[in-house]
Amino acid sequence: MVNQTIHIDQNQLSSLEHRYRAHLVNSLSGFKSANLIGSVSELGQTNLAIVSSVIHLGADPALVGFISRPHSVARDTLSNIIATSCYTINQVNSDIWQQAHQTSARYETDQCEFDAVGLTPAYHEGVLAPFVAQSRLKYAVKLESVETIALNQTLLVIGSITDILLDDMALKSDGSVDIERLNSVCVSGLDSYHRTERLGRLSYAKPDKPLTLIDDY
Amino acid sequence: MVNQTIHIDQNQLSSLEHRYRAHLVNSLSGFKSANLIGSVSELGQTNLAIVSSVIHLGADPALVGFISRPHSVARDTLSNIIATSCYTINQVNSDIWQQAHQTSARYETDQCEFDAVGLTPAYHEGVLAPFVAQSRLKYAVKLESVETIALNQTLLVIGSITDILLDDMALKSDGSVDIERLNSVCVSGLDSYHRTERLGRLSYAKPDKPLTLIDDY
Repeated sequence: MVNQTIHIDQNQLSSLEHRYRAHLVNSLSGFKSANLIGSVSELGQTNLAIVSSVIHLGADPALVGFISRPHSVARDTLSNIIATSCYTINQVNSDIWQQAHQTSARYETDQCEFDAVGLTPAYHEGVLAPFVAQSRLKYAVKLESVETIALNQTLLVIGSITDILLDDMALKSDGSVDIERLNSVCVSGLDSYHRTERLGRLSYAKPDKPLTLIDDY
Repeated sequence: MVNQTIHIDQNQLSSLEHRYRAHLVNSLSGFKSANLIGSVSELGQTNLAIVSSVIHLGADPALVGFISRPHSVARDTLSNIIATSCYTINQVNSDIWQQAHQTSARYETDQCEFDAVGLTPAYHEGVLAPFVAQSRLKYAVKLESVETIALNQTLLVIGSITDILLDDMALKSDGSVDIERLNSVCVSGLDSYHRTERLGRLSYAKPDKPLTLIDDY
C-alpha cells in the first residue's frame, strides 16, 4: 500500500471543526516538553499546572519561557507568578505522567492540585514556590518579563533560572543532562505522552567534516 | 546506592565554563521538537536549517513560532524569511536525523544545505520556499511578526500556517496526528536525538473524575 500525502490549505484549515483543528495544529510543532509549574499565592495557596510549552531562551543569562493564555486553566499559576515573581519548573517523568495530566482539570482556586492529584510539594531554602518532590530535574525561576503576543493575545512568560535541583546520576561530564535516564517524558498533540529511546548524540557540525557519535553512555 | 540531589545556585550557574553551562541549561527545558526550516533568498538561493525551538502558539488562527538569534547559524534563514515572508517547517524523522543535524554547520551563504547534507528540496504550488521531500509532516508558513526579547536580544519569529502536507497514515479521526508513527524524533540538550514510545493518550481532565486512556491505536 502506498501512503498518500494529504494537503490541507488555509481555507480548509480555518473551516475545520474547533476541536479537530486544535488536535491537528497542536500536532504540527512536533514533540513538546512536559513540565509542571509550581507556584503559590500571596495568601499561601499552592498551585500546580502542567505546561507543554516550556522553551529554552538562552544559557547566559539562563532564561526559560512558557506560553500561557490569560484565561486558560493555568490562570491561578499566572496570577501567582505575577504576584510573587517566583515559580518552579519540574520535569514530568514516567512515574507521574498521569498525575501531571490531571493537574489540567479546572480545580477551584482554593483547591490544591498537589493534594487533588497525589503529588508531594517540596520546599528549598530561599525559594517561595513549591517544587514537585517526585520530579528528578527541577529548578526555581524568577519572573523577568511577560510579553503579550499581539496576534492572539497569548503571553510569553520569561524567567531567569535561580536554583537547579538535579538527580546526580544524570549529569554528564560536559554539563549535559541525560534526561532520558531520568525517565522524563514528552508530549505530542494535546494529550499523548511518550517515553524516549536515544538514537545518539552527535558532534558539533562543521562543513566538509563527517559527524561522529558522542559515545558517553 | 542512593541517588544524590545536586543543587546549583545562581552564582554557581553564572560562573560555569561557557560550554558546560550551555549544555546544562539547554537540558533543563525538557525534550524539544526537531524541525528543518526551509527558505529561499530573493535571488533564489535555498537554505535549510535545523531548529529545536519550534513552538505551538495557537490553533485559531494557526500560529507557530521559533526562537532565533540574530547572529546564529540560522542567519541566512532569518534573512530569507524577512525578505520573502515565506518558509516551511518540516518534522525531522529517524531516517534523516543525522543529515538534519549536519545543516547546523556554518556553510557559506551561497552553499545550499540541501546539496551539502543530501536532502531533497520539494516544491508545492503557491509556496515559494522549499519543503524537505523526506519529511512526512511539513507545512508552509507566512511570516506574521518578529518579536525581539529585550532580555537577551533573541527573536521570536511568528508565522501563520498556510499549507499542511501530511502522510495520511498518521491522521486520526479526531484530527490529531500520530507523529510517533511518522518516526518523528525529539531532541534533548544541544545534540542528543531520541525516538519515542507512546505511554498513552489521556482523556480531557476534569476534577473528581478519573482519567481514562484513549485507546485508538
